[in-house]
Amino acid sequence: MNDIECMRLALQLAKKGCGFVNPNPMVGAVLLKEGRVIGTGYHERYGAPHAEVNALAGCEESPYGATLYVTLEPCCHYGKTPPCTEAILNAGIKRVVVGSSDPNPLVKGKGIKILREKGVEVTEGILKSECDRLNEVFFHFIQTGRPYVVMKYAMTMDGKTAAYTGDSKWITGETARENVHKDRLRYSAVMVGIGTVFADDPLLTCRTEGGRNPLRIICDTTLRLPLTSQIVATANEVPTLIATSCRDQETQQPYLKAGCRILPLEQADGHLDLYELMTKLGTEKIDSILLEGGGILNWSALQAGIVNRVQTYIAPKLFGGSGGKTPVAGPGVPHPEDGFFLTNIEVKHLGEDILIESEVKPYVHRDY
Amino acid sequence: MNDIECMRLALQLAKKGCGFVNPNPMVGAVLLKEGRVIGTGYHERYGAPHAEVNALAGCEESPYGATLYVTLEPCCHYGKTPPCTEAILNAGIKRVVVGSSDPNPLVKGKGIKILREKGVEVTEGILKSECDRLNEVFFHFIQTGRPYVVMKYAMTMDGKTAAYTGDSKWITGETARENVHKDRLRYSAVMVGIGTVFADDPLLTCRTEGGRNPLRIICDTTLRLPLTSQIVATANEVPTLIATSCRDQETQQPYLKAGCRILPLEQADGHLDLYELMTKLGTEKIDSILLEGGGILNWSALQAGIVNRVQTYIAPKLFGGSGGKTPVAGPGVPHPEDGFFLTNIEVKHLGEDILIESEVKPYVHRDY
Repeated sequence: MNDIECMRLALQLAKKGCGFVNPNPMVGAVLLKEGRVIGTGYHERYGAPHAEVNALAGCEESPYGATLYVTLEPCCHYGKTPPCTEAILNAGIKRVVVGSSDPNPLVKGKGIKILREKGVEVTEGILKSECDRLNEVFFHFIQTGRPYVVMKYAMTMDGKTAAYTGDSKWITGETARENVHKDRLRYSAVMVGIGTVFADDPLLTCRTEGGRNPLRIICDTTLRLPLTSQIVATANEVPTLIATSCRDQETQQPYLKAGCRILPLEQADGHLDLYELMTKLGTEKIDSILLEGGGILNWSALQAGIVNRVQTYIAPKLFGGSGGKTPVAGPGVPHPEDGFFLTNIEVKHLGEDILIESEVKPYVHRDY
Repeated sequence: MNDIECMRLALQLAKKGCGFVNPNPMVGAVLLKEGRVIGTGYHERYGAPHAEVNALAGCEESPYGATLYVTLEPCCHYGKTPPCTEAILNAGIKRVVVGSSDPNPLVKGKGIKILREKGVEVTEGILKSECDRLNEVFFHFIQTGRPYVVMKYAMTMDGKTAAYTGDSKWITGETARENVHKDRLRYSAVMVGIGTVFADDPLLTCRTEGGRNPLRIICDTTLRLPLTSQIVATANEVPTLIATSCRDQETQQPYLKAGCRILPLEQADGHLDLYELMTKLGTEKIDSILLEGGGILNWSALQAGIVNRVQTYIAPKLFGGSGGKTPVAGPGVPHPEDGFFLTNIEVKHLGEDILIESEVKPYVHRDY
């Protein structure tokens, strides 16, 4: 096996931690000795040992003189676990091959530097772009302290998120909807606006086998969330947070009793200050959010500059309708050159549907 | 060269006729003898010799005993030119390899039958789906007598065809817009509604080098097309047809004087009867139309059941806007299951933009 094949195996291992390591990165590691894989490991859950340590612990023979493949630069600081660089040096690893560099200010090249100083040969950047893409959430969170926000919506080929009656069940097919459930596992939280609760009364749980539910965040400026909604009814089992500007204790009481948490927020231009919300969620180690809002919340989120990635599910159908709902509403931009620009487009076929993923280009806040 | 390689070459040749053979099919032919290509040809323009005849005429040596590759079953009837089957038999061709069968009721397997009866070996269906796709316009037109309609629109990733101010210059980038100009060459006519003329004052010409302009069709129920529009101003150079229910001679006069043709049409539900329009255009040998209308005309066309293919250009940007224009307007369908369904999805990257092509599934006319 060559470097690329070993790193690909390490990447596959890393992905097994998806949904269980946040806000840590997903990391995979492979030990190769005399052409044979003698150990593999990955970061399995937050607080548990790192991939490198798991690979060393699971070795079938002495790792002395082996090559270690690891998707992310080994750590060199004491966190929840001791530094991996130490474990690597103690095991007598001869060569370390790294995918991504660690942007964590506590590591950032230091891990590699320590290994080199101790005589370990280090090769960097093998399958770097794949490794970087795997941990875009971690990279964003560790550098900004704010969650990585993925705006997800499903629309028809003519841009409608519902028929004119409001009926939206279903736009996309099963394969696409399963993919959304996998993403609810991948990201730490899902967020919707009160409009979506009124329209769909969703559960927002992760119905993937072996999954775990994300934190549910409801943006509800004036606290109108129906106490009879599925979300409130299940708030004792599924973590639920209501972001609101309503400070009235009496109004809040029944939600708190039902098991919801309430996060008080200031208003900005008549709606919740979403930038402030992200800052607060970041301090609570919420590293990522799947934004499953309607057009109004999506517009506010774009305007607030909090959206990092856009997932556009497109169903092969046309609804028509001059007043039909579209994925991003609000006032809108006045001219094409004022739009929010997307980049790094990737297209996937999911059953009959198409998923277009893209990143939001950085931009300056503008008022319309 | 094997059968598939030769047929691929024939397909490439066929495409050279694109835009100049309508309402005939595009056809390419290759002659192979002892492993060498000894002649090639394609149907170059309407009324000119067929591909097989051109390949035979251009032979570098005697085609006696050669294999003929042809993308479409050879004709066996006297049309504008004598039957190709005769030319093939006269030349002493030993084997004929065919891509598509000809759905033309005058041919339909007869060409192949005649060749076999005369002792020529015939292989059918090589690269059949590519050959069929190449001539979807011809196949539709020869079987229905009505034009093949391609509904084309450009929208943002959030389904908008314009910013809220109406500004739509530009949604897509240059590569995508060039592709539209190529399609204006490929299809016999372009069609827009009066709304598009008011909004954009377009020229609707083919700005591709060596191209030819399509017939311009304006759907204008009450004949409100501005006499100062670019379309009227250029009607003497570019064929222009106004479909209208206005029968008033005096109103019509200045348009006729400017070089426009007027096609009188009945109304259906308050707008032009588009089904009737297609029937009339079919009798005039208009085999294909690029529908570049706005949302209202697109809805009417879908409702009338005249749309065969949909081209969705998607630009990597978000405009937002709750009242923004979308590609298909009108009243819209009440429920997702009532939508117009699309199939055979193909995705292409055109510069920064994406083009999703699809076919409209057949459906029964419904009233909303």
